[in-house]
Amino acid sequence: MNLPSRVTITEVGPRDGLQNEPAIIPLEQKIALVDALSATGLTRIEAASFVSAKAIPQMADASDVLRGNQRRPGVTYIGLVPNEIGARSAIEARVDEIAVVVSASELHNRSNLNRGVADTLDSIKVVANLARDAGLAWSGYISTAFGCPYEGDVDPANVLEIAGILRDQGASGVALGDTIGIANPRQVSSLVERFFADVPSVGLRLHFHDTRGMALANVIAAMDCGTSQFDGSIGGLGGCPYAPGASGNVATEDMAAMLHAMGIETGVDLDALLNAAWLAEDIVGRPLDGRIKKAAERSGRLSKGLV
Amino acid sequence: MNLPSRVTITEVGPRDGLQNEPAIIPLEQKIALVDALSATGLTRIEAASFVSAKAIPQMADASDVLRGNQRRPGVTYIGLVPNEIGARSAIEARVDEIAVVVSASELHNRSNLNRGVADTLDSIKVVANLARDAGLAWSGYISTAFGCPYEGDVDPANVLEIAGILRDQGASGVALGDTIGIANPRQVSSLVERFFADVPSVGLRLHFHDTRGMALANVIAAMDCGTSQFDGSIGGLGGCPYAPGASGNVATEDMAAMLHAMGIETGVDLDALLNAAWLAEDIVGRPLDGRIKKAAERSGRLSKGLV
Repeated sequence: MNLPSRVTITEVGPRDGLQNEPAIIPLEQKIALVDALSATGLTRIEAASFVSAKAIPQMADASDVLRGNQRRPGVTYIGLVPNEIGARSAIEARVDEIAVVVSASELHNRSNLNRGVADTLDSIKVVANLARDAGLAWSGYISTAFGCPYEGDVDPANVLEIAGILRDQGASGVALGDTIGIANPRQVSSLVERFFADVPSVGLRLHFHDTRGMALANVIAAMDCGTSQFDGSIGGLGGCPYAPGASGNVATEDMAAMLHAMGIETGVDLDALLNAAWLAEDIVGRPLDGRIKKAAERSGRLSKGLV
Repeated sequence: MNLPSRVTITEVGPRDGLQNEPAIIPLEQKIALVDALSATGLTRIEAASFVSAKAIPQMADASDVLRGNQRRPGVTYIGLVPNEIGARSAIEARVDEIAVVVSASELHNRSNLNRGVADTLDSIKVVANLARDAGLAWSGYISTAFGCPYEGDVDPANVLEIAGILRDQGASGVALGDTIGIANPRQVSSLVERFFADVPSVGLRLHFHDTRGMALANVIAAMDCGTSQFDGSIGGLGGCPYAPGASGNVATEDMAAMLHAMGIETGVDLDALLNAAWLAEDIVGRPLDGRIKKAAERSGRLSKGLV
């Protein structure tokens, strides 16, 4: 296997995780989670979504989350924005980076953003200009890149075309989202290889959900093809309200534990991540899916080498 | 990636799974599970352990499980035996294949079998002779091949030496057991490559537990090195009573779903496997860890291409 020596993890739990919680989490708990995460050595944290409070009330206090946390030096605090209004709020709240989102499938895009893919790409152009004027980097998620809950299979050509448009609009990175956790390692290899061939000159991140338990297998396949940037969600928080059957993102601490066991650096402290995962559980008030957390609880101790 | 076109799964749930259940499962339910599994297209089923009823009361009716099930043509029914007495019972109950077990680490072997590795290998020689006289194939598990709950790291040289001894004693196959679910993909690649180089002329199976969520990632790494035989446990049943913190085997249906999605044949029917997993849950009376089962429950339907 061809493996990187270092992987960069983007933590998306405070956004992709908490936006899907049925309850609205109090502001101070959101800030506590972001601060616990920035204390782990993670350098990229997607802290909130600047979406309309009417659409997603869970994220109504996005600006306060950005303003209230410790803003630890060396950490990039990212805000997801669905449109121009969100972008203005995010810039005002002094995010370090903006994330935009578009789906590779028309029907999911309409469910998620209430408009078509072409309109969304137009809107992203406006956001891109705002980000450039503010001197901020921005990156683009392509949701349903490996399969759509409404349309089924997704043509990789669609994904690559959208990725090329995002790059041409000035994205510093593109994240391919396996929104419903349906990607398999062969598919990941294939899409990643095509991505590097067809859409050079833009960073590639992969965003896996662990719905069918394949997320870490997909990380292996993606690394083998040269990917070294992955999203994770603390404890396995998350899911997609518009994707029936979707469960959480791959748990950040499970991914980090695997990478460390393989001798791949991430810069994060595993014990601190585990504590953040337990904090996330306390905040949402239910057990999360992360596996090493459960293993640590079951054994009542950290075993040699790896919890 | 270098992937096989076909993988053979050995189902170990009725043995590795049910022997770890706190409750004793009624005989007719054990038989129902074995019959449900043989109806899925699985060709290898480890149906019971012929261990002393005093040591593991859960397996006291091993002979009745072998005698009472349908014995579907084309299916190899395997019995695990810890010693000569067990081997005689298994042969009498007309198993198709015998499995023996030895640990790669001395302390785990003593916990599991109440004697040392050298004594266990002597005892396996006796079992091997009985199997040969009965015209039966036998294979050997090497437990703790990737790490031990008592000794920590395990020297791969120990594993390969024991594998060579088993081969020389006439084993048709060797299964490397990740008893505590601590193996990582790089370690799997490394051990499998050394196995093929140092211990040729014997079949290799890999037996992963999913304690830390790495089982499917390990399957990918192992296939990439040329392995095409894996153990699975329906629903993710299992664990090891002598390995603190161990959880179940990789769920057979999750592994089959991933392989099918990748275009790798297993000969099993995924819907039938899911039904067997739900039966296993009914039998043990608690939710099991298998992921596609949960995804199917969450979505209330089978989505396109893959549940």
